[in-house]
Amino acid sequence: MSSTRDIDALIAMMAKLPGLGPRSARRAVLHMIRKRALLLTPLADLMQTVAATARECLNCGNVGTSDICDICASEKRANGILCVVEDVADLWAMERSGTFKGRYHVLGGTLSALDQVGPSQLRIPKLIDRVATEGITEVILALNATVDGQTTAHYIADELGGRAALSSLAQGVPIGGELDYLDDGTITAALNARKRL
Amino acid sequence: MSSTRDIDALIAMMAKLPGLGPRSARRAVLHMIRKRALLLTPLADLMQTVAATARECLNCGNVGTSDICDICASEKRANGILCVVEDVADLWAMERSGTFKGRYHVLGGTLSALDQVGPSQLRIPKLIDRVATEGITEVILALNATVDGQTTAHYIADELGGRAALSSLAQGVPIGGELDYLDDGTITAALNARKRL
Repeated sequence: MSSTRDIDALIAMMAKLPGLGPRSARRAVLHMIRKRALLLTPLADLMQTVAATARECLNCGNVGTSDICDICASEKRANGILCVVEDVADLWAMERSGTFKGRYHVLGGTLSALDQVGPSQLRIPKLIDRVATEGITEVILALNATVDGQTTAHYIADELGGRAALSSLAQGVPIGGELDYLDDGTITAALNARKRL
Repeated sequence: MSSTRDIDALIAMMAKLPGLGPRSARRAVLHMIRKRALLLTPLADLMQTVAATARECLNCGNVGTSDICDICASEKRANGILCVVEDVADLWAMERSGTFKGRYHVLGGTLSALDQVGPSQLRIPKLIDRVATEGITEVILALNATVDGQTTAHYIADELGGRAALSSLAQGVPIGGELDYLDDGTITAALNARKRL
C-alpha cells in the first residue's frame, strides 16, 4: 500500500514513544486524522517548534528553551540550597508539589556498574563544581529509592565531603497509602522514622 | 515559566491522545526531546505530511492518501464481495489477518438510540447504493459483538432485503483462549456452533 506509507510510517514512529505500542499508536493516529485541525496540525507545529528551541540548561541540566533555564535564571529562587534529582521528570515532579524554593541539579541518570555508567557520564563533576562556586550550604539528595539511586547518593555524599549539609527525602507511608498494599521495606522505614505526636 | 510554554503546550496536547494521560505525555515529550533528530523532528515532519494528505476514501470510508483508497482502486481484490466494518481500525485489523481478499465498507460507527446516531449519520445509504451498483453478491457483516453492533447488523440485513447473501463473523473461543477466562455468552455461542470432528 504505497500511497498510505506516510500513515504507516507515522504509526510506526508513534509506537516508539514510551507508553505506546503498535495498537495504541494506530488508535492515536486515527484519532489525530479525525481531529486534524484540532490535534494533528497543531501537534505537528508544536513539535517543530520544540525541536527547534528545546535545549538542556548548561547549569543544571533542566530542559527548557534557553541556555540557562527559568529556574536557574530566576531571582525569586533561594540561593545556597540545591536539590539533586536523577532526571528532568523528577525535577518537574518536585516543581508540581510547589514546596521547594531553591535550585536544582539534574544528574541525568544514576551510577550503574551494570550499565557502565560512571560519575563522568553524569553531571556529578558539575555538581561538585557548583557546590564549590555557588556558595551552596545545603544539598538535598532527592534520588529514587532504588539500589542505583542510593549508590549514587552515597557516592555524592563522599565526594562532597563536609562542604555542604546533606539530606535526603524522608521515607515512609505515602499520603493516602494503605499499609496492606505497602512493601515490607517501606513499613520498616516508616516504623523506624516514627514521629512522636 | 513563559519560555517553556511550548513544551508545556506540547505535553498538554499529547495528553489528549487516546491511551496517553498527563504523566505518560510528559514522559513521551522528554523522550522525544532527548531523541530529537531520531524522533521529534521526523515525527513533526510526518504529522505535517499526513495532515496535508490523509483523506477518507469517497467509496468505502477507509483512511488513505487519495480520494479512492488503495483497496478500492486495486485490481487484485475480488469484486462482488463486501466486508462491512464499523471503523477504519477494524478494517486495518481485518487486513492484518491477510485472509479477506474482497473489498470493504466502513460505516463510521454503529446505530445508537442513546447517542442519537441514525442510518444517515453512518455510511449506510452508500452501502445500499454500492450493493445495488457494484454487483455485490455477498456481504460479510464484521461488526463488533456489542448490542449496538448487532442492532446495526439487523438494520442492514433488513435494508438489503435479499439483494446479497449475508453472513457475519463466527462467534466462539478465540485462538489461545482459556475457557476459564471466557464469559458465559461466548461459551454458549461456542457450544451452540460446535463443529463435528
